[in-house]
Amino acid sequence: MTNTPDTAAVRAYLLGLQDRICAAIEAEDGTGRFCEESWDRPEGGGGRSRVLTDGAVFEQAGIGFSHVFGPGMPPSATVHRPELAGRGFEALGVSLVFHPHNPYVPTTHMNVRFFIAEKEGQPPVWWFGLTPYYGFEEDAVHWHTVARDACAPFGEEVYPRTKRWCDEYFFLKHRNEPRGIGGIFFDDLNDLNGWDFERCFAFQQSVGDHFLSAYLPILRRRRDTPYGERERDFQLYRRGRYVECNLVWDRGTLFGLQSGGRTESILMSLPPLVRWRYAWHPEPGTPEARLYEEFLRPRDWAP
Amino acid sequence: MTNTPDTAAVRAYLLGLQDRICAAIEAEDGTGRFCEESWDRPEGGGGRSRVLTDGAVFEQAGIGFSHVFGPGMPPSATVHRPELAGRGFEALGVSLVFHPHNPYVPTTHMNVRFFIAEKEGQPPVWWFGLTPYYGFEEDAVHWHTVARDACAPFGEEVYPRTKRWCDEYFFLKHRNEPRGIGGIFFDDLNDLNGWDFERCFAFQQSVGDHFLSAYLPILRRRRDTPYGERERDFQLYRRGRYVECNLVWDRGTLFGLQSGGRTESILMSLPPLVRWRYAWHPEPGTPEARLYEEFLRPRDWAP
Repeated sequence: MTNTPDTAAVRAYLLGLQDRICAAIEAEDGTGRFCEESWDRPEGGGGRSRVLTDGAVFEQAGIGFSHVFGPGMPPSATVHRPELAGRGFEALGVSLVFHPHNPYVPTTHMNVRFFIAEKEGQPPVWWFGLTPYYGFEEDAVHWHTVARDACAPFGEEVYPRTKRWCDEYFFLKHRNEPRGIGGIFFDDLNDLNGWDFERCFAFQQSVGDHFLSAYLPILRRRRDTPYGERERDFQLYRRGRYVECNLVWDRGTLFGLQSGGRTESILMSLPPLVRWRYAWHPEPGTPEARLYEEFLRPRDWAP
Repeated sequence: MTNTPDTAAVRAYLLGLQDRICAAIEAEDGTGRFCEESWDRPEGGGGRSRVLTDGAVFEQAGIGFSHVFGPGMPPSATVHRPELAGRGFEALGVSLVFHPHNPYVPTTHMNVRFFIAEKEGQPPVWWFGLTPYYGFEEDAVHWHTVARDACAPFGEEVYPRTKRWCDEYFFLKHRNEPRGIGGIFFDDLNDLNGWDFERCFAFQQSVGDHFLSAYLPILRRRRDTPYGERERDFQLYRRGRYVECNLVWDRGTLFGLQSGGRTESILMSLPPLVRWRYAWHPEPGTPEARLYEEFLRPRDWAP
């Protein structure tokens, strides 16, 4: 057991994770291919962004690796811990958002990140969330069961705590509405009860390694469901919530934009096509209303 | 000359301004009609939102009047003046954003607002900006000439100062790019050199009264220009910058969302349909590239 962060090991794991997920998604899509761009951050570090657009299954799938460092932490990272302001930092992560064509396939997002502030241990950040347009109980149960399995080796309190945290974090206060059916979320070192580097890294790997087995079965179950203009319109409308959540509330996005990250890589999570409709509400009794009533509220999907 | 804010007079002016602009826009559109919804803010005040959708000329045109008050100022309003935190406040304003169908017609936005903090005078806020998709010198010159005329009775330094301020405020730092060709912007009482209420109110009226004569001639000149999928795609892409500007940087939007304003009314400025394209850049020598090279940079359009 050690508490010295092995940055090289984290980096190797994350680059490999990006490779594995890209290979699986290309195989699933059949025709789409990821384009890669590497970028340098003038203040230190850089990344490897990969985007697949206009595939057979995915309208856009973006997955980025980044490793940035610098002498001063950006404000979004210290708003809740002002004692870290001005400290040097190093952050390594993989972040992904997949936007499928078919409105019956949920959008998904994952972020696994190590955040190392000088002389302050290594707070990791992770999440793993699902945003359906049309809800299915079996999908929600499957998603949360895999999330629970990813957490299980680290203590039985880990899943319920990070599940609840996800419900709270991915909540659009200005809409009084959850972003999706949630998943797991964690972003604060102080809550870790003395986990050392090895344990944090093992947990991060467990989250990363469970992602494909959480998402692919749902994708395969829904990708051939027929749909028409009505479902497509609802998908474009709901994607607006995604934009609002990312640009107004998400600390990761704000951290990236404020720390001089590569804007195109940070915003590659935004949906390719989005619709806003003023004061629109679904008709009661429709499948669209059912999303709000039965899925967009905190529920114990994997008790 | 007096320094006691006459809230009733401001309110009457703003309601009348909203009526006049709606009537002119409906006449211009020909078929679209504004739908009105009044709303109450539980903490104090309310508003009158009007939205026209799917007109002949306008894809969406939103114009809202609001008058809100409460015992404590929201953080977005005090970030640059922390001594106002916790003070009671009252805010009255008219805010509009018009999104035309035709990509040759610019999107426009205006906000005229009085912000009254207890025992602290009455800082007004105003702007008036134009966001073209395809630039035309004569339109930019006309727009800025009217803006200059609106400022002229209040001192010859007013236009150059508020024009420069607009260039600085409506700048997307994360894109290193101005939002459009600008206009005028003002939001800080301390810069007013002792203007009293009467003068602030007269200036606000001048800005409001000049809006239609700034925008309508441009609209009429461009509304029948033929366009195809290429121009439409570029319009949807550029609308993404509008969303980024509003949700990431705009203090008015953040103020509204944080102060418990009506979310649908605050976000009715968002474009009805938007496209993001990863790492897209216009081909050199195209009309799209010309927008960036010749119009999206600060220029003296009305020297």
